[in-house]
Amino acid sequence: MDWMEKKNVLIVGLGLMGGSYARALKRLGFHVSALDRDAEAIAYALREHIIHEGSAEDNDDLIRRADAIIFALYPGIFPEWVQSHQHLFKPGARMTDVTGVKSCIVYRIQEMLRNDVEFIAAHPMAGRELSGVQNSDDRIFRDANYIIVPTENNTAEGIEWCGMLGRLLGCGRISVLYPREHDRMIAFVSQLTHCIAVSLMTCSDNTHLADYTGDSFRDLTRIARINDKMWSELFMMNREPLLEQMDIFLQELQNFREMLAKGDTEGMREKMRLSTERRAMFDKQ
Amino acid sequence: MDWMEKKNVLIVGLGLMGGSYARALKRLGFHVSALDRDAEAIAYALREHIIHEGSAEDNDDLIRRADAIIFALYPGIFPEWVQSHQHLFKPGARMTDVTGVKSCIVYRIQEMLRNDVEFIAAHPMAGRELSGVQNSDDRIFRDANYIIVPTENNTAEGIEWCGMLGRLLGCGRISVLYPREHDRMIAFVSQLTHCIAVSLMTCSDNTHLADYTGDSFRDLTRIARINDKMWSELFMMNREPLLEQMDIFLQELQNFREMLAKGDTEGMREKMRLSTERRAMFDKQ
Repeated sequence: MDWMEKKNVLIVGLGLMGGSYARALKRLGFHVSALDRDAEAIAYALREHIIHEGSAEDNDDLIRRADAIIFALYPGIFPEWVQSHQHLFKPGARMTDVTGVKSCIVYRIQEMLRNDVEFIAAHPMAGRELSGVQNSDDRIFRDANYIIVPTENNTAEGIEWCGMLGRLLGCGRISVLYPREHDRMIAFVSQLTHCIAVSLMTCSDNTHLADYTGDSFRDLTRIARINDKMWSELFMMNREPLLEQMDIFLQELQNFREMLAKGDTEGMREKMRLSTERRAMFDKQ
Repeated sequence: MDWMEKKNVLIVGLGLMGGSYARALKRLGFHVSALDRDAEAIAYALREHIIHEGSAEDNDDLIRRADAIIFALYPGIFPEWVQSHQHLFKPGARMTDVTGVKSCIVYRIQEMLRNDVEFIAAHPMAGRELSGVQNSDDRIFRDANYIIVPTENNTAEGIEWCGMLGRLLGCGRISVLYPREHDRMIAFVSQLTHCIAVSLMTCSDNTHLADYTGDSFRDLTRIARINDKMWSELFMMNREPLLEQMDIFLQELQNFREMLAKGDTEGMREKMRLSTERRAMFDKQ
Protein backbone atom coordinates (compact mmCIF):
# COMPACT_ATOMS: atom_id res chain seq x y z
CA MET A 1 0.00 0.00 0.00
CA ASP A 2 1.34 3.33 -1.03
CA TRP A 3 0.45 6.31 1.18
CA MET A 4 -0.23 8.30 -1.94
CA GLU A 5 -3.23 6.13 -2.77
CA LYS A 6 -5.10 7.72 0.13
CA LYS A 7 -6.67 4.65 1.53
CA ASN A 8 -8.21 3.50 4.79
CA VAL A 9 -6.28 4.00 7.99
CA LEU A 10 -7.49 2.39 11.22
CA ILE A 11 -6.38 3.72 14.59
CA VAL A 12 -6.63 1.14 17.37
CA GLY A 13 -6.71 2.97 20.72
CA LEU A 14 -8.01 6.52 20.50
CA GLY A 15 -6.23 8.41 23.26
CA LEU A 16 -3.85 11.34 23.10
CA MET A 17 -1.52 9.74 20.56
CA GLY A 18 -4.17 7.91 18.53
CA GLY A 19 -6.21 11.08 18.33
CA SER A 20 -3.19 13.10 17.23
CA TYR A 21 -2.43 10.61 14.44
CA ALA A 22 -6.09 10.68 13.42
CA ARG A 23 -6.15 14.47 13.18
CA ALA A 24 -2.96 14.58 11.10
CA LEU A 25 -3.98 11.81 8.73
CA LYS A 26 -7.55 13.01 8.24
CA ARG A 27 -6.24 16.47 7.41
CA LEU A 28 -4.05 14.86 4.73
CA GLY A 29 -7.07 13.29 3.07
CA PHE A 30 -6.96 9.72 4.38
CA HIS A 31 -10.11 7.90 5.38
CA VAL A 32 -9.59 7.53 9.13
CA SER A 33 -11.47 5.11 11.37
CA ALA A 34 -10.87 4.24 15.01
CA LEU A 35 -11.58 1.56 17.57
CA ASP A 36 -11.58 2.25 21.29
CA ARG A 37 -13.43 0.60 24.14
CA ASP A 38 -14.29 4.04 25.49
CA ALA A 39 -17.56 5.03 23.82
CA GLU A 40 -17.10 8.64 24.91
CA ALA A 41 -13.75 8.89 23.16
CA ILE A 42 -15.29 7.62 19.93
CA ALA A 43 -18.32 9.90 20.26
CA TYR A 44 -16.09 12.90 20.94
CA ALA A 45 -13.87 12.15 17.93
CA LEU A 46 -16.86 11.76 15.63
CA ARG A 47 -18.46 14.97 16.91
CA GLU A 48 -15.22 16.90 16.48
CA HIS A 49 -14.56 15.39 13.03
CA ILE A 50 -11.27 13.88 14.18
CA ILE A 51 -12.26 10.57 12.54
CA HIS A 52 -14.66 9.53 9.77
CA GLU A 53 -15.90 6.38 11.47
CA GLY A 54 -15.40 4.67 14.78
CA SER A 55 -16.70 2.06 17.13
CA ALA A 56 -16.49 1.20 20.81
CA GLU A 57 -17.67 -2.35 20.06
CA ASP A 58 -15.97 -5.09 18.10
CA ASN A 59 -16.29 -4.08 14.47
CA ASP A 60 -14.85 -6.63 12.06
CA ASP A 61 -15.68 -4.54 9.05
CA LEU A 62 -13.49 -1.58 10.11
CA ILE A 63 -10.54 -3.92 10.61
CA ARG A 64 -11.15 -5.80 7.33
CA ARG A 65 -11.17 -2.56 5.31
CA ALA A 66 -7.96 -1.11 6.80
CA ASP A 67 -4.97 -0.80 4.48
CA ALA A 68 -2.91 0.62 7.33
CA ILE A 69 -3.32 0.16 11.08
CA ILE A 70 -1.80 2.36 13.77
CA PHE A 71 -1.69 0.69 17.18
CA ALA A 72 -1.94 3.33 19.89
CA LEU A 73 -2.89 0.97 22.72
CA TYR A 74 -1.49 0.66 26.22
CA PRO A 75 1.55 -1.60 25.83
CA GLY A 76 0.11 -4.16 28.27
CA ILE A 77 -2.85 -5.04 26.05
CA PHE A 78 -1.34 -4.43 22.63
CA PRO A 79 -0.02 -7.95 21.81
CA GLU A 80 -3.24 -9.59 23.01
CA TRP A 81 -5.31 -7.35 20.77
CA VAL A 82 -3.24 -8.33 17.73
CA GLN A 83 -3.47 -12.00 18.63
CA SER A 84 -7.23 -12.00 18.87
CA HIS A 85 -7.97 -9.82 15.83
CA GLN A 86 -5.33 -10.66 13.26
CA HIS A 87 -7.55 -13.11 11.41
CA LEU A 88 -9.44 -10.02 10.25
CA PHE A 89 -6.44 -8.10 8.84
CA LYS A 90 -6.56 -7.35 5.11
CA PRO A 91 -3.87 -9.24 3.19
CA GLY A 92 -0.99 -6.89 2.42
CA ALA A 93 -1.92 -4.47 5.20
CA ARG A 94 0.90 -2.55 6.85
CA MET A 95 0.84 -1.65 10.51
CA THR A 96 2.86 0.33 12.97
CA ASP A 97 2.57 1.57 16.54
CA VAL A 98 3.39 4.44 18.89
CA THR A 99 4.80 2.43 21.80
CA GLY A 100 7.81 3.94 23.57
CA VAL A 101 9.51 0.59 24.32
CA LYS A 102 10.29 -1.94 21.66
CA SER A 103 12.28 -5.10 22.46
CA CYS A 104 9.53 -6.69 24.49
CA ILE A 105 6.87 -5.78 21.92
CA VAL A 106 8.19 -6.00 18.42
CA TYR A 107 9.54 -9.56 18.41
CA ARG A 108 6.43 -10.88 20.10
CA ILE A 109 4.13 -9.21 17.59
CA GLN A 110 6.16 -10.19 14.55
CA GLU A 111 6.41 -13.79 15.70
CA MET A 112 2.69 -14.22 16.07
CA LEU A 113 1.72 -12.17 13.02
CA ARG A 114 0.37 -13.63 9.78
CA ASN A 115 2.91 -13.74 6.96
CA ASP A 116 0.85 -11.68 4.52
CA VAL A 117 0.89 -8.49 6.61
CA GLU A 118 3.79 -6.46 8.01
CA PHE A 119 4.29 -4.73 11.34
CA ILE A 120 6.98 -2.05 11.50
CA ALA A 121 7.62 -0.69 15.00
CA ALA A 122 8.04 3.07 15.33
CA HIS A 123 7.14 6.09 17.39
CA PRO A 124 7.53 9.84 17.42
CA MET A 125 9.42 11.48 20.31
CA ALA A 126 6.36 13.52 21.09
CA GLY A 127 3.58 13.71 23.61
CA ARG A 128 1.87 15.91 26.13
CA GLU A 129 1.39 15.85 29.89
CA LEU A 130 -2.32 15.31 29.30
CA SER A 131 -4.09 12.21 28.10
CA GLY A 132 -7.21 11.39 26.12
CA VAL A 133 -8.42 12.15 22.62
CA GLN A 134 -9.83 15.42 24.01
CA ASN A 135 -6.26 16.63 24.38
CA SER A 136 -4.96 15.24 21.10
CA ASP A 137 -3.17 17.72 18.89
CA ASP A 138 -1.32 17.04 15.66
CA ARG A 139 1.04 19.96 16.28
CA ILE A 140 2.96 17.69 18.69
CA PHE A 141 4.64 16.12 15.66
CA ARG A 142 6.02 19.36 14.33
CA ASP A 143 9.83 19.07 14.27
CA ALA A 144 9.70 16.03 16.56
CA ASN A 145 12.06 13.12 16.02
CA TYR A 146 10.42 10.04 14.51
CA ILE A 147 12.11 6.73 15.21
CA ILE A 148 11.67 3.54 13.22
CA VAL A 149 12.73 0.38 15.05
CA PRO A 150 12.99 -2.37 12.44
CA THR A 151 14.04 -5.99 12.91
CA GLU A 152 15.45 -8.48 10.44
CA ASN A 153 11.84 -9.49 9.74
CA ASN A 154 11.01 -6.16 8.13
CA THR A 155 11.15 -5.41 4.42
CA ALA A 156 12.87 -2.39 2.91
CA GLU A 157 9.48 -1.34 1.54
CA GLY A 158 7.87 -1.60 4.95
CA ILE A 159 10.58 0.53 6.55
CA GLU A 160 10.26 3.12 3.80
CA TRP A 161 6.48 3.17 4.21
CA CYS A 162 6.93 3.78 7.92
CA GLY A 163 9.39 6.63 7.34
CA MET A 164 6.91 8.19 4.95
CA LEU A 165 4.30 8.12 7.72
CA GLY A 166 6.69 10.07 9.97
CA ARG A 167 7.12 12.66 7.24
CA LEU A 168 3.37 12.87 6.62
CA LEU A 169 2.82 13.55 10.31
CA GLY A 170 5.23 16.47 10.03
CA CYS A 171 8.11 15.06 12.06
CA GLY A 172 11.40 16.84 11.52
CA ARG A 173 13.84 13.98 11.50
CA ILE A 174 13.41 10.30 10.74
CA SER A 175 15.87 7.93 12.42
CA VAL A 176 16.33 4.18 12.41
CA LEU A 177 17.46 2.28 15.52
CA TYR A 178 17.52 -1.42 16.32
CA PRO A 179 15.41 -2.58 19.29
CA ARG A 180 18.21 -2.97 21.83
CA GLU A 181 19.86 0.39 21.15
CA HIS A 182 16.44 1.99 20.97
CA ASP A 183 15.50 0.73 24.41
CA ARG A 184 18.77 1.88 25.98
CA MET A 185 18.35 5.29 24.39
CA ILE A 186 14.73 5.59 25.53
CA ALA A 187 15.69 4.49 29.06
CA PHE A 188 18.12 7.38 29.22
CA VAL A 189 16.47 10.27 27.39
CA SER A 190 12.86 9.61 28.31
CA GLN A 191 12.30 7.13 31.14
CA LEU A 192 15.11 8.26 33.45
CA THR A 193 14.03 11.88 33.03
CA HIS A 194 10.48 10.95 34.03
CA CYS A 195 11.75 9.08 37.10
CA ILE A 196 13.76 12.15 38.09
CA ALA A 197 10.85 14.53 37.60
CA VAL A 198 8.53 12.32 39.64
CA SER A 199 11.09 11.92 42.45
CA LEU A 200 11.68 15.69 42.56
CA MET A 201 7.98 16.21 43.20
CA THR A 202 7.60 13.39 45.72
CA CYS A 203 10.84 13.66 47.72
CA SER A 204 9.41 16.26 50.08
CA ASP A 205 6.22 18.22 50.52
CA ASN A 206 7.10 21.15 48.33
CA THR A 207 3.68 22.49 47.42
CA HIS A 208 4.24 25.64 49.48
CA LEU A 209 7.24 26.39 47.25
CA ALA A 210 5.16 27.12 44.16
CA ASP A 211 5.44 30.84 44.92
CA TYR A 212 9.19 30.78 44.63
CA THR A 213 9.98 28.54 41.73
CA GLY A 214 11.81 29.86 38.72
CA ASP A 215 11.82 28.36 35.26
CA SER A 216 14.40 25.71 36.11
CA PHE A 217 12.22 23.88 38.60
CA ARG A 218 9.19 24.19 36.35
CA ASP A 219 11.15 22.81 33.40
CA LEU A 220 12.48 19.87 35.36
CA THR A 221 9.09 18.88 36.69
CA ARG A 222 6.81 19.59 33.74
CA ILE A 223 6.81 15.87 32.92
CA ALA A 224 6.00 14.97 36.53
CA ARG A 225 2.35 15.13 35.42
CA ILE A 226 2.32 11.61 34.20
CA ASN A 227 -0.14 8.92 33.15
CA ASP A 228 0.65 6.44 35.92
CA LYS A 229 -0.89 3.40 34.23
CA MET A 230 0.93 3.87 30.95
CA TRP A 231 4.30 4.88 32.34
CA SER A 232 4.45 2.11 34.93
CA GLU A 233 3.75 -0.38 32.14
CA LEU A 234 6.46 1.17 29.99
CA PHE A 235 8.96 1.11 32.88
CA MET A 236 8.23 -2.53 33.64
CA MET A 237 8.58 -3.49 29.98
CA ASN A 238 11.99 -1.82 29.81
CA ARG A 239 13.14 -2.67 33.30
CA GLU A 240 16.73 -3.78 32.72
CA PRO A 241 17.85 -0.85 30.52
CA LEU A 242 16.11 1.61 32.84
CA LEU A 243 17.69 0.17 35.99
CA GLU A 244 21.07 0.42 34.30
CA GLN A 245 20.56 4.09 33.39
CA MET A 246 19.20 4.93 36.84
CA ASP A 247 22.28 3.40 38.45
CA ILE A 248 24.64 5.35 36.20
CA PHE A 249 22.83 8.60 37.01
CA LEU A 250 22.55 7.90 40.75
CA GLN A 251 26.27 7.21 40.89
CA GLU A 252 27.10 10.43 39.07
CA LEU A 253 24.89 12.58 41.29
CA GLN A 254 26.35 10.85 44.35
CA ASN A 255 29.86 11.71 43.08
CA PHE A 256 28.85 15.32 42.64
CA ARG A 257 27.50 15.30 46.19
CA GLU A 258 30.84 14.02 47.49
CA MET A 259 32.72 16.76 45.64
CA LEU A 260 30.47 19.34 47.27
CA ALA A 261 30.86 17.74 50.71
CA LYS A 262 34.66 17.75 50.34
CA GLY A 263 34.74 21.28 48.96
CA ASP A 264 36.22 20.08 45.67
CA THR A 265 35.30 23.23 43.75
CA GLU A 266 37.56 22.41 40.82
CA GLY A 267 35.97 18.97 40.44
CA MET A 268 32.49 20.52 40.35
CA ARG A 269 33.60 23.16 37.87
CA GLU A 270 35.03 20.50 35.59
CA LYS A 271 31.70 18.65 35.58
CA MET A 272 29.88 21.92 34.87
CA ARG A 273 32.18 22.73 31.97
CA LEU A 274 31.61 19.28 30.49
CA SER A 275 27.86 19.55 30.86
CA THR A 276 27.89 23.02 29.32
CA GLU A 277 29.90 21.84 26.35
CA ARG A 278 27.69 18.80 25.73
CA ARG A 279 24.46 20.70 26.16
CA ALA A 280 25.65 23.35 23.70
CA MET A 281 26.02 20.61 21.10
CA PHE A 282 22.41 19.59 21.70
CA ASP A 283 21.29 23.14 21.09
CA LYS A 284 23.06 23.16 17.74
CA GLN A 285 20.94 20.24 16.50
CA MET B 1 15.22 57.69 48.78
CA ASP B 2 11.97 57.22 46.98
CA TRP B 3 12.12 55.45 43.62
CA MET B 4 9.73 58.03 42.25
CA GLU B 5 12.36 60.75 42.56
CA LYS B 6 14.24 59.17 39.65
CA LYS B 7 17.69 59.43 41.04
CA ASN B 8 21.06 57.82 40.49
CA VAL B 9 21.34 54.05 40.47
CA LEU B 10 24.74 52.38 40.45
CA ILE B 11 25.14 48.78 39.27
CA VAL B 12 28.25 47.10 40.67
CA GLY B 13 29.12 44.14 38.43
CA LEU B 14 27.83 44.44 34.88
CA GLY B 15 27.19 40.88 33.74
CA LEU B 16 23.99 39.20 32.67
CA MET B 17 22.02 40.23 35.77
CA GLY B 18 23.59 43.66 36.24
CA GLY B 19 22.99 44.44 32.59
CA SER B 20 19.38 43.31 32.80
CA TYR B 21 18.76 45.56 35.83
CA ALA B 22 20.46 48.43 34.00
CA ARG B 23 18.25 48.02 30.93
CA ALA B 24 15.07 47.91 33.00
CA LEU B 25 15.97 50.89 35.19
CA LYS B 26 17.26 53.08 32.37
CA ARG B 27 14.08 52.44 30.43
CA LEU B 28 12.13 53.65 33.49
CA GLY B 29 13.99 56.96 33.48
CA PHE B 30 16.62 56.42 36.18
CA HIS B 31 20.15 57.67 35.75
CA VAL B 32 22.07 54.39 35.56
CA SER B 33 25.82 54.03 36.05
CA ALA B 34 27.92 50.88 36.33
CA LEU B 35 31.25 49.64 37.60
CA ASP B 36 32.88 46.50 36.26
CA ARG B 37 36.52 45.51 36.02
CA ASP B 38 35.89 44.32 32.47
CA ALA B 39 36.47 47.34 30.24
CA GLU B 40 34.78 45.61 27.33
CA ALA B 41 31.58 45.10 29.29
CA ILE B 42 31.49 48.81 30.16
CA ALA B 43 32.30 49.85 26.60
CA TYR B 44 29.60 47.57 25.22
CA ALA B 45 27.00 48.88 27.67
CA LEU B 46 27.83 52.50 26.83
CA ARG B 47 27.74 51.82 23.10
CA GLU B 48 24.41 50.03 23.35
CA HIS B 49 22.97 52.72 25.65
CA ILE B 50 22.35 50.18 28.42
CA ILE B 51 23.90 52.61 30.93
CA HIS B 52 24.50 56.37 31.05
CA GLU B 53 27.96 56.21 32.60
CA GLY B 54 30.39 53.56 33.59
CA SER B 55 33.94 52.79 34.52
CA ALA B 56 36.29 49.83 34.57
CA GLU B 57 38.60 51.69 36.97
CA ASP B 58 38.00 52.78 40.53
CA ASN B 59 35.65 55.73 40.27
CA ASP B 60 34.83 57.30 43.63
CA ASP B 61 32.55 59.87 42.09
CA LEU B 62 30.11 57.31 40.68
CA ILE B 63 29.83 55.63 44.06
CA ARG B 64 29.47 58.95 45.93
CA ARG B 65 26.59 60.07 43.73
CA ALA B 66 24.60 56.82 43.98
CA ASP B 67 21.27 56.97 45.80
CA ALA B 68 20.75 53.27 45.18
CA ILE B 69 23.29 50.53 44.56
CA ILE B 70 22.58 47.11 43.04
CA PHE B 71 25.30 44.57 43.75
CA ALA B 72 25.47 42.07 40.90
CA LEU B 73 28.91 40.70 41.72
CA TYR B 74 30.13 37.13 42.00
CA PRO B 75 29.27 36.13 45.56
CA GLY B 76 32.91 35.36 46.37
CA ILE B 77 34.05 38.97 45.93
CA PHE B 78 30.90 40.79 46.96
CA PRO B 79 31.58 41.30 50.73
CA GLU B 80 35.16 42.41 50.07
CA TRP B 81 33.99 45.01 47.59
CA VAL B 82 31.59 46.48 50.13
CA GLN B 83 34.28 46.49 52.81
CA SER B 84 36.75 48.40 50.72
CA HIS B 85 34.34 50.91 49.18
CA GLN B 86 31.75 51.66 51.84
CA HIS B 87 33.50 54.80 53.02
CA LEU B 88 32.33 56.30 49.71
CA PHE B 89 28.63 55.45 50.07
CA LYS B 90 26.24 58.41 50.16
CA PRO B 91 24.56 58.79 53.55
CA GLY B 92 21.02 57.40 53.37
CA ALA B 93 21.78 55.29 50.29
CA ARG B 94 19.85 52.04 49.91
CA MET B 95 21.37 48.96 48.41
CA THR B 96 20.34 45.49 47.38
CA ASP B 97 21.80 42.56 45.47
CA VAL B 98 20.96 39.72 43.08
CA THR B 99 22.78 36.91 44.87
CA GLY B 100 21.04 33.54 44.90
CA VAL B 101 22.23 32.53 48.39
CA LYS B 102 21.69 34.65 51.43
CA SER B 103 22.64 33.42 54.92
CA CYS B 104 26.37 33.59 54.30
CA ILE B 105 26.13 37.01 52.66
CA VAL B 106 23.50 39.15 54.28
CA TYR B 107 24.62 38.99 57.92
CA ARG B 108 28.23 39.56 56.95
CA ILE B 109 27.38 42.62 54.87
CA GLN B 110 24.98 44.10 57.39
CA GLU B 111 27.45 43.61 60.23
CA MET B 112 30.24 45.49 58.48
CA LEU B 113 28.03 48.16 56.93
CA ARG B 114 27.93 51.79 58.05
CA ASN B 115 24.86 52.68 60.10
CA ASP B 116 23.68 55.46 57.81
CA VAL B 117 23.03 53.21 54.82
CA GLU B 118 20.84 50.11 54.44
CA PHE B 119 21.37 46.85 52.61
CA ILE B 120 18.28 44.77 51.85
CA ALA B 121 19.05 41.35 50.35
CA ALA B 122 16.87 40.21 47.45
CA HIS B 123 16.89 38.55 44.08
CA PRO B 124 14.56 37.69 41.23
CA MET B 125 14.06 34.02 40.32
CA ALA B 126 15.26 34.76 36.84
CA GLY B 127 18.27 34.25 34.65
CA ARG B 128 19.48 32.80 31.40
CA GLU B 129 21.86 30.01 30.41
CA LEU B 130 24.16 32.66 28.97
CA SER B 131 26.36 35.13 30.79
CA GLY B 132 27.71 38.62 30.17
CA VAL B 133 26.11 42.01 29.65
CA GLN B 134 25.94 41.15 25.92
CA ASN B 135 23.23 38.63 26.78
CA SER B 136 21.40 40.79 29.30
CA ASP B 137 17.69 41.19 28.70
CA ASP B 138 15.15 42.89 30.93
CA ARG B 139 12.40 40.59 29.70
CA ILE B 140 13.77 37.93 32.09
CA PHE B 141 11.93 39.71 34.91
CA ARG B 142 8.54 39.48 33.29
CA ASP B 143 6.27 37.47 35.60
CA ALA B 144 9.29 36.17 37.54
CA ASN B 145 9.15 35.76 41.31
CA TYR B 146 11.06 38.42 43.23
CA ILE B 147 12.21 37.45 46.70
CA ILE B 148 13.17 39.83 49.48
CA VAL B 149 15.26 38.28 52.25
CA PRO B 150 15.23 40.72 55.17
CA THR B 151 16.82 40.34 58.57
CA GLU B 152 15.98 41.98 61.91
CA ASN B 153 18.40 44.75 60.89
CA ASN B 154 16.20 45.95 58.06
CA THR B 155 13.65 48.74 58.31
CA ALA B 156 10.08 48.53 57.08
CA GLU B 157 10.88 51.37 54.67
CA GLY B 158 13.91 49.51 53.31
CA ILE B 159 11.88 46.36 52.72
CA GLU B 160 9.16 48.35 51.01
CA TRP B 161 11.74 50.12 48.83
CA CYS B 162 13.12 46.77 47.79
CA GLY B 163 9.69 45.38 46.93
CA MET B 164 9.08 48.46 44.82
CA LEU B 165 12.26 47.67 42.89
CA GLY B 166 10.90 44.19 42.14
CA ARG B 167 7.71 45.73 40.81
CA LEU B 168 9.61 48.30 38.75
CA LEU B 169 11.59 45.50 37.13
CA GLY B 170 8.32 43.89 36.12
CA CYS B 171 8.39 40.87 38.40
CA GLY B 172 5.04 39.18 38.83
CA ARG B 173 5.09 38.28 42.49
CA ILE B 174 6.98 39.77 45.42
CA SER B 175 7.67 37.42 48.34
CA VAL B 176 9.45 37.78 51.64
CA LEU B 177 11.50 34.94 53.15
CA TYR B 178 13.95 34.88 56.04
CA PRO B 179 17.55 33.84 55.22
CA ARG B 180 17.40 30.28 56.54
CA GLU B 181 14.14 29.36 54.85
CA HIS B 182 15.27 31.15 51.71
CA ASP B 183 18.45 29.09 51.52
CA ARG B 184 16.62 25.80 52.05
CA MET B 185 14.11 26.76 49.38
CA ILE B 186 16.82 27.79 46.92
CA ALA B 187 18.77 24.59 47.61
CA PHE B 188 15.72 22.62 46.55
CA VAL B 189 14.14 24.55 43.68
CA SER B 190 17.28 25.94 42.07
CA GLN B 191 20.54 24.36 43.19
CA LEU B 192 19.41 20.73 43.32
CA THR B 193 17.83 21.08 39.88
CA HIS B 194 21.10 22.41 38.49
CA CYS B 195 23.03 19.50 40.06
CA ILE B 196 20.59 17.07 38.46
CA ALA B 197 20.83 18.71 35.04
CA VAL B 198 24.64 18.69 35.14
CA SER B 199 24.77 15.07 36.28
CA LEU B 200 22.36 14.02 33.51
CA MET B 201 24.73 15.48 30.94
CA THR B 202 27.91 14.12 32.49
CA CYS B 203 26.84 10.63 33.62
CA SER B 204 27.55 9.08 30.23
CA ASP B 205 28.70 10.20 26.82
CA ASN B 206 25.33 10.99 25.36
CA THR B 207 26.22 13.42 22.60
CA HIS B 208 25.22 10.91 19.91
CA LEU B 209 21.71 10.91 21.40
CA ALA B 210 20.92 14.46 20.33
CA ASP B 211 19.09 13.09 17.27
CA TYR B 212 16.60 11.24 19.41
CA THR B 213 15.78 13.52 22.28
CA GLY B 214 12.28 14.73 22.83
CA ASP B 215 11.22 17.78 24.78
CA SER B 216 11.54 16.10 28.17
CA PHE B 217 15.29 15.58 27.96
CA ARG B 218 15.79 19.05 26.54
CA ASP B 219 13.74 20.59 29.32
CA LEU B 220 15.60 18.74 32.05
CA THR B 221 19.01 19.71 30.73
CA ARG B 222 18.44 23.27 29.53
CA ILE B 223 20.08 24.55 32.73
CA ALA B 224 23.05 22.21 32.26
CA ARG B 225 24.64 25.12 30.37
CA ILE B 226 25.96 26.72 33.46
CA ASN B 227 28.44 29.39 34.55
CA ASP B 228 30.83 27.10 36.42
CA LYS B 229 32.57 29.83 38.40
CA MET B 230 29.40 31.41 39.70
CA TRP B 231 27.47 28.22 40.43
CA SER B 232 30.34 26.49 42.20
CA GLU B 233 30.64 29.56 44.45
CA LEU B 234 26.89 29.53 45.10
CA PHE B 235 26.93 25.80 45.90
CA MET B 236 29.85 26.20 48.31
CA MET B 237 28.15 29.12 50.04
CA ASN B 238 25.01 27.08 50.57
CA ARG B 239 26.67 23.74 51.15
CA GLU B 240 24.71 22.39 54.13
CA PRO B 241 21.19 23.07 52.82
CA LEU B 242 22.17 21.76 49.38
CA LEU B 243 23.69 18.54 50.75
CA GLU B 244 20.52 17.99 52.75
CA GLN B 245 18.29 18.41 49.67
CA MET B 246 20.55 16.23 47.53
CA ASP B 247 20.35 13.46 50.10
CA ILE B 248 16.56 13.64 50.27
CA PHE B 249 16.33 13.47 46.49
CA LEU B 250 18.93 10.70 46.11
CA GLN B 251 17.06 8.60 48.66
CA GLU B 252 13.75 9.12 46.88
CA LEU B 253 15.14 8.19 43.47
CA GLN B 254 16.86 5.17 45.01
CA ASN B 255 13.48 4.10 46.50
CA PHE B 256 11.85 4.43 43.11
CA ARG B 257 14.65 2.32 41.64
CA GLU B 258 13.98 -0.41 44.23
CA MET B 259 10.27 -0.40 43.42
CA LEU B 260 11.11 -0.90 39.75
CA ALA B 261 13.63 -3.65 40.55
CA LYS B 262 11.05 -5.48 42.70
CA GLY B 263 8.29 -4.97 40.14
CA ASP B 264 6.23 -2.93 42.62
CA THR B 265 4.00 -1.38 39.97
CA GLU B 266 1.46 -0.14 42.48
CA GLY B 267 4.18 1.64 44.48
CA MET B 268 5.45 3.40 41.35
CA ARG B 269 1.92 4.36 40.33
CA GLU B 270 1.26 5.84 43.75
CA LYS B 271 4.38 8.03 43.43
CA MET B 272 3.31 9.07 39.94
CA ARG B 273 -0.16 10.02 41.13
CA LEU B 274 1.31 12.10 43.96
CA SER B 275 3.72 13.86 41.60
CA THR B 276 0.92 14.52 39.12
CA GLU B 277 -1.30 15.99 41.80
CA ARG B 278 1.46 18.24 43.19
CA ARG B 279 2.66 19.38 39.81
CA ALA B 280 -0.90 20.27 38.82
CA MET B 281 -1.01 22.64 41.80
CA PHE B 282 2.14 24.33 40.55
CA ASP B 283 0.52 24.89 37.17
CA LYS B 284 -2.42 26.60 38.83
CA GLN B 285 -0.17 29.25 40.33
